[in-house]
Amino acid sequence: MQQTRLDAARIGAARQLIDPVFLDTPLYRCEALDPGLGCAVSIKLETANPVRSFKARGTEVVASLLAARGPRAVVCASAGNLGQALAWSGRGRGLDVTVVAPRHATAAKLDRIRALGARLELVDGDHELARDLAAAIARRDGIRLLEDSLDLETCEGAATIGLELVDSASSFDTVLVALGGGALATGVGHVVKSSRPDVEVVCVQPLGAPAMTRSWHERRVVTTESTNTIADGVAGRHPIPAVLDDLLLIVDDAVLVTEASIVAGMRMLLDHAGLVVEPSAALGIAAILEDRDRFADRHVLTIVCGGNVDLDAYRRWTDPAVDPSLL
Amino acid sequence: MQQTRLDAARIGAARQLIDPVFLDTPLYRCEALDPGLGCAVSIKLETANPVRSFKARGTEVVASLLAARGPRAVVCASAGNLGQALAWSGRGRGLDVTVVAPRHATAAKLDRIRALGARLELVDGDHELARDLAAAIARRDGIRLLEDSLDLETCEGAATIGLELVDSASSFDTVLVALGGGALATGVGHVVKSSRPDVEVVCVQPLGAPAMTRSWHERRVVTTESTNTIADGVAGRHPIPAVLDDLLLIVDDAVLVTEASIVAGMRMLLDHAGLVVEPSAALGIAAILEDRDRFADRHVLTIVCGGNVDLDAYRRWTDPAVDPSLL
Repeated sequence: MQQTRLDAARIGAARQLIDPVFLDTPLYRCEALDPGLGCAVSIKLETANPVRSFKARGTEVVASLLAARGPRAVVCASAGNLGQALAWSGRGRGLDVTVVAPRHATAAKLDRIRALGARLELVDGDHELARDLAAAIARRDGIRLLEDSLDLETCEGAATIGLELVDSASSFDTVLVALGGGALATGVGHVVKSSRPDVEVVCVQPLGAPAMTRSWHERRVVTTESTNTIADGVAGRHPIPAVLDDLLLIVDDAVLVTEASIVAGMRMLLDHAGLVVEPSAALGIAAILEDRDRFADRHVLTIVCGGNVDLDAYRRWTDPAVDPSLL
Repeated sequence: MQQTRLDAARIGAARQLIDPVFLDTPLYRCEALDPGLGCAVSIKLETANPVRSFKARGTEVVASLLAARGPRAVVCASAGNLGQALAWSGRGRGLDVTVVAPRHATAAKLDRIRALGARLELVDGDHELARDLAAAIARRDGIRLLEDSLDLETCEGAATIGLELVDSASSFDTVLVALGGGALATGVGHVVKSSRPDVEVVCVQPLGAPAMTRSWHERRVVTTESTNTIADGVAGRHPIPAVLDDLLLIVDDAVLVTEASIVAGMRMLLDHAGLVVEPSAALGIAAILEDRDRFADRHVLTIVCGGNVDLDAYRRWTDPAVDPSLL
């Protein structure tokens, strides 16, 4: 494997900085999913923690380092999960946290960011506009700008999931990873490929937000004009070149899935695994649903990366009386 | 603390026999629940595993011991969760497992028992009738009868949850435990009271299945003619004297809650924690809802003990358009 931006020593050190409440998350076979998917499915569950997503693994690292020696204020752009995680990590360490989010972000996520005591700035636009404003605030106030996926701590935090996968007794063939900015895929992919190069790492992104996947296939940054997906957690338009470079080294494939498959994946996780997941966390199941032959009889592990949903939308998505293709 | 049937050495040994997939389950503060309940709430989550309940902690111990030196066949009565867990634990160890369940048990649980390869015998009656038939099968076939709560392995398995609670950094004031046969309360209560006698252990049972709670208050076995609750996992009528004796030594209180509160508890766990739980697992939240003053400003830990539900019923229970008191 060629060199990515990550290395084992830093990932190991990152793990030491993370509150144990976010570590050693459940990893288990979910046989009830097998018949519907035609393969053996295991779940790595990142939703049973105080912020209901994997993002705190990264923000714990960032906040620990800032509390020890950095500026005591930090700003990030977020669709909600990173912001909630940074608010949690910063609060316990006395940091001043600002989160810039799109106004139309999942209300439940925005409510939790406020409840955790962070300053919330809303922009009338998408994630890229939030990134611009976060950068402007950082420049203006001279504080740390946390950039998801670009900043190594976010990838290293995610990489600790990879450590738990390869340290487990589970012998999976494929890992399905939700792809947005790329921190999760970079971190998990780096560790898995370093330790178990025979395991296939497949990124999954919505057809409605395909920038990084197209970039990966074309081996150059491809941006898009807009996004159109319910998977708010992965809806970027401007891939980060350094992250793309890493993904080109460690990812075996990147696939796109329809909104109907994402909804069908959320339904399967509810019906057969009893899990409430946000759309981004159903991308892995969606990928299996769209290409059963590819995964037939393999042991597939999917990272259930977040569970923050607005219940009204969630009820609509998982209402059996509603045809997913009509949502 | 006076002597119960349990002891630390046996509980420690039991822990060694349990597949790690069932151990070290998530334990976390769920602040989103606090405002609605008026106290600080932590969750011990026992649903993110291959059988979606805590019961495998006990069946792992039973099955390990049977595989090593017992008869290689075992029968139990179950409302579904114990049977599913025993089927899982027995399958991996080559045991012949029979489960006797009420015909009206949760279909999802019965389906999983069959899928796991156990023989399923259905009775036209309630849990007590299932217990009678299981005992008759054991006598007829000369095989092991596993009796939940009476058999020490089931209490010792549950006690490993207690170990994880007292080993955690969390400093809770009260533990709320669902009360059915009593294995969970006996196991967790024994460990918590041994190690942190100042922590209050409160059992919670449905008003519609109050036999053990009444027995605890009257300090003698009280049976009931029938049960009427959606919390199928705790719906017994004939408390076991030896279990009652243990509970009298280690439990601080036992309370009864209405069906409407159980439903409200399930809704709160869905709305604010993103957790799909079965009615028994909402008993702790229901107890807080029924007596907010008692728990005000305390740090309360509730064990979310199972998540096996029939989705149709679950959707009805958690439909915001339906008044819980009318269910």
